[in-house]
Amino acid sequence: MLPVTADGIPLCELADLADRPHAWPKLWRHHAAQPEADEINALAAERGESWLPRYGGRISSEWQFAKALQVLRDDPGVYERTARWIEGADWIVWELCGRETRNVSSAGYKGIHQDGAWPSRDFLAALDPRFTDFVSERLDHPLSQLGGRAGGLTARAAAWTGLREGTPVAVGNIDAHVTAATARTTGPGRMLAIMGTSTCHVMNSEVLAEVPGMCGMTLGGITPGMWGYEAGQSGVGDIFGWFVDTHVPPVYHEEAASEGVSVHELLSDRASHQAVGEHGLVALDWHSGNRSVLVDHSLSGVLVGMTLATRPEDVYRALVEATAFGTRTIVEAFTGAGIPVHDFTVGGGMVRNPFVLQVYADVLNRPLHVVDTEHSCAVGAAIHAAVAAGAHPDVHAASQVMGRVRADTVDPDPERAAAYDALFAIYSELHDHFGRGGSDSLRRLRALRGAAFTTGSTPEGKR
Amino acid sequence: MLPVTADGIPLCELADLADRPHAWPKLWRHHAAQPEADEINALAAERGESWLPRYGGRISSEWQFAKALQVLRDDPGVYERTARWIEGADWIVWELCGRETRNVSSAGYKGIHQDGAWPSRDFLAALDPRFTDFVSERLDHPLSQLGGRAGGLTARAAAWTGLREGTPVAVGNIDAHVTAATARTTGPGRMLAIMGTSTCHVMNSEVLAEVPGMCGMTLGGITPGMWGYEAGQSGVGDIFGWFVDTHVPPVYHEEAASEGVSVHELLSDRASHQAVGEHGLVALDWHSGNRSVLVDHSLSGVLVGMTLATRPEDVYRALVEATAFGTRTIVEAFTGAGIPVHDFTVGGGMVRNPFVLQVYADVLNRPLHVVDTEHSCAVGAAIHAAVAAGAHPDVHAASQVMGRVRADTVDPDPERAAAYDALFAIYSELHDHFGRGGSDSLRRLRALRGAAFTTGSTPEGKR
Repeated sequence: MLPVTADGIPLCELADLADRPHAWPKLWRHHAAQPEADEINALAAERGESWLPRYGGRISSEWQFAKALQVLRDDPGVYERTARWIEGADWIVWELCGRETRNVSSAGYKGIHQDGAWPSRDFLAALDPRFTDFVSERLDHPLSQLGGRAGGLTARAAAWTGLREGTPVAVGNIDAHVTAATARTTGPGRMLAIMGTSTCHVMNSEVLAEVPGMCGMTLGGITPGMWGYEAGQSGVGDIFGWFVDTHVPPVYHEEAASEGVSVHELLSDRASHQAVGEHGLVALDWHSGNRSVLVDHSLSGVLVGMTLATRPEDVYRALVEATAFGTRTIVEAFTGAGIPVHDFTVGGGMVRNPFVLQVYADVLNRPLHVVDTEHSCAVGAAIHAAVAAGAHPDVHAASQVMGRVRADTVDPDPERAAAYDALFAIYSELHDHFGRGGSDSLRRLRALRGAAFTTGSTPEGKR
Repeated sequence: MLPVTADGIPLCELADLADRPHAWPKLWRHHAAQPEADEINALAAERGESWLPRYGGRISSEWQFAKALQVLRDDPGVYERTARWIEGADWIVWELCGRETRNVSSAGYKGIHQDGAWPSRDFLAALDPRFTDFVSERLDHPLSQLGGRAGGLTARAAAWTGLREGTPVAVGNIDAHVTAATARTTGPGRMLAIMGTSTCHVMNSEVLAEVPGMCGMTLGGITPGMWGYEAGQSGVGDIFGWFVDTHVPPVYHEEAASEGVSVHELLSDRASHQAVGEHGLVALDWHSGNRSVLVDHSLSGVLVGMTLATRPEDVYRALVEATAFGTRTIVEAFTGAGIPVHDFTVGGGMVRNPFVLQVYADVLNRPLHVVDTEHSCAVGAAIHAAVAAGAHPDVHAASQVMGRVRADTVDPDPERAAAYDALFAIYSELHDHFGRGGSDSLRRLRALRGAAFTTGSTPEGKR
């Protein structure tokens, strides 16, 4: 998000505001607006705002409204000078074609635009009287469908890019969401998981339902005409990376080097030779908190079942399985809410690891379709641009032609899939115990951690 | 334990039995007699045998009766040839002074001798008719008090040892128990923890009570005239060692080498600079199962609270704390059962680590007395020998003169002790959840582990 003038100039580029932090763009993953998010959620719950369940019951501090309210509270002068409050994707398009557009996807997922409306003036006034006109003055604009044409390249932007003036510019979009076109999963019930350091799940459906713990759902948010659902896992590849960086002993690093493979590959290879359940472990993949389906970033990781015989490849495998169980929990939340999940496609950096893919296929007990490019977001953006330029009639058609999916699937082994049911039952038990009120120990540990940094009772005394 | 002839000759030294495994001595930690232990426990519980609660409700497969019953079942011929079934400590004394003695401590802890009696013929017959005379024919003998004189060195043993014939030989004893004399903790309510790869807790009391989860209690089992209690933690130093060997990355090993310290010392030093609770972790120290107070070796380790910022020294500290919480659980079990614990002394290899001692002092919120010799068992044996030889009137007096305890104590810090109460509350919650029926997930994981080795459903198919 960034605050701009009526001409689209970022406030941070104005000489008199350049040293004001709130005049600068805010990265989505900056969580400083958590108090404002809490305030929005409490008020929306109290008033029974119909849009709240569309976001799993919680508007994130990562999104538009909380960040704008924080600017108002912390630097009213910057807020006052903000003519337009806009997503980066829409601002870039504005720069390219010289006119403001707003895409329906960002408005729905990162703003709070549902059923054709933003939160009411009444709601905004109740949050803060000075916030009453936030939507009408700073946000509101006709929304553009994905794959639509925003305009043509200006002479200035043609000079920047080396393209011809008037080249069609597509409306803005979101990296994970365009990937549905790359993955040929724009049809209903085709779930796509983009697995990297974290995982984002996107799926179209003809059905509207409130699925517990979604990041959001938006009509046309992924592909025009369908309800686009988004869910996520905050930590996936970065949990594996954390483990490899901090918990693998020298001899493994030496062996990986002598075999000419990465430590990830060494651990994956060793773990792949185990039978399901052989390591005796189950982990909860909450080292970065839990996005879906618990929407709780105060949670943390859990590992149970260690013995003196537990080896690094055992824990590595348990962590991979935990993230697969997390994905299965999300799939079951969809199906439990009445949204059918017909098939499952994976993309992102993690598809390079066949061991990880096999675990996911076995845990989900589904064949996995696999995106066949490392540049899935760029291909997806190109598909939308091709539609905007008129090269294809719509995103579905362009996706069939331009999408990239491997010919073969990664198939589950029935015996391993059955064995995983027993481990998943333990995962679910731990998930509910630590995440749904059985024990608040993870939240208490987080609070104690915070208190320790404040009081600082070390063995040597005060810090 | 070993089976011997009426003359004390081990059956494994007889030519016709040398190739029969059951003719050989059985190390206590060999667990093959678990089915027989289960059988003994089930029958004793069913019959309400009064001695069962003295062993925390479970006779271990590590002890006399289960092992003897296994020999009878698996090799009746060896059982038939067994004239005497005897502990190694008593057999060595027999070799040294040419006459059989049996010490009250082994009979009480490792046998089932309580209130002056062994299990009844009736009970033995109900176990197996062929076992009816086990006590009367193979075990029974007058019991000798600790510090008593078993006899004098025979001419043959004098030649072996280079000592004079007739040199007094003390009755047998147990390594952990003699250490109470070294630690000057033979008085009532003075708990001694011998901390090494595992920890053994021994304490005398004038009070008889059934403390949940004890390994055993025996009148005169530690020092004549008092009830000797024994409890234990199956994994302590070996958990720290496992972590250092398998979960510490190369850079820590390199830094330890460049600083000229061990990895344990490096991790301890880094962990010692943290405030209580700063790492946000709590562990359950069950990597080798739980001896006291749960008496369940099917349990396994648990670690909760990990984030992507969790470092090796954080987990190391959490593991050290977990073993201290385990000790606190044992101390509270004693006090809760009405057995006062007046003070606390530590011995064993772990006393070399000041960080570990400080954590224990803070967690227990008690000053720690520290044994001041690395050879605490040898010193304890010498104390008992000195009493047997008449150099001191009794073990208490000899202990005061010959014991070795540091002049200064390791004292708790009140602020840290208070902070640990909150972490201990979480430990206790997890302890009861995973250990006392809230969740049987650890036992299920162990069962799945066993099944995985049998069915072997690996990603490559059958093993």
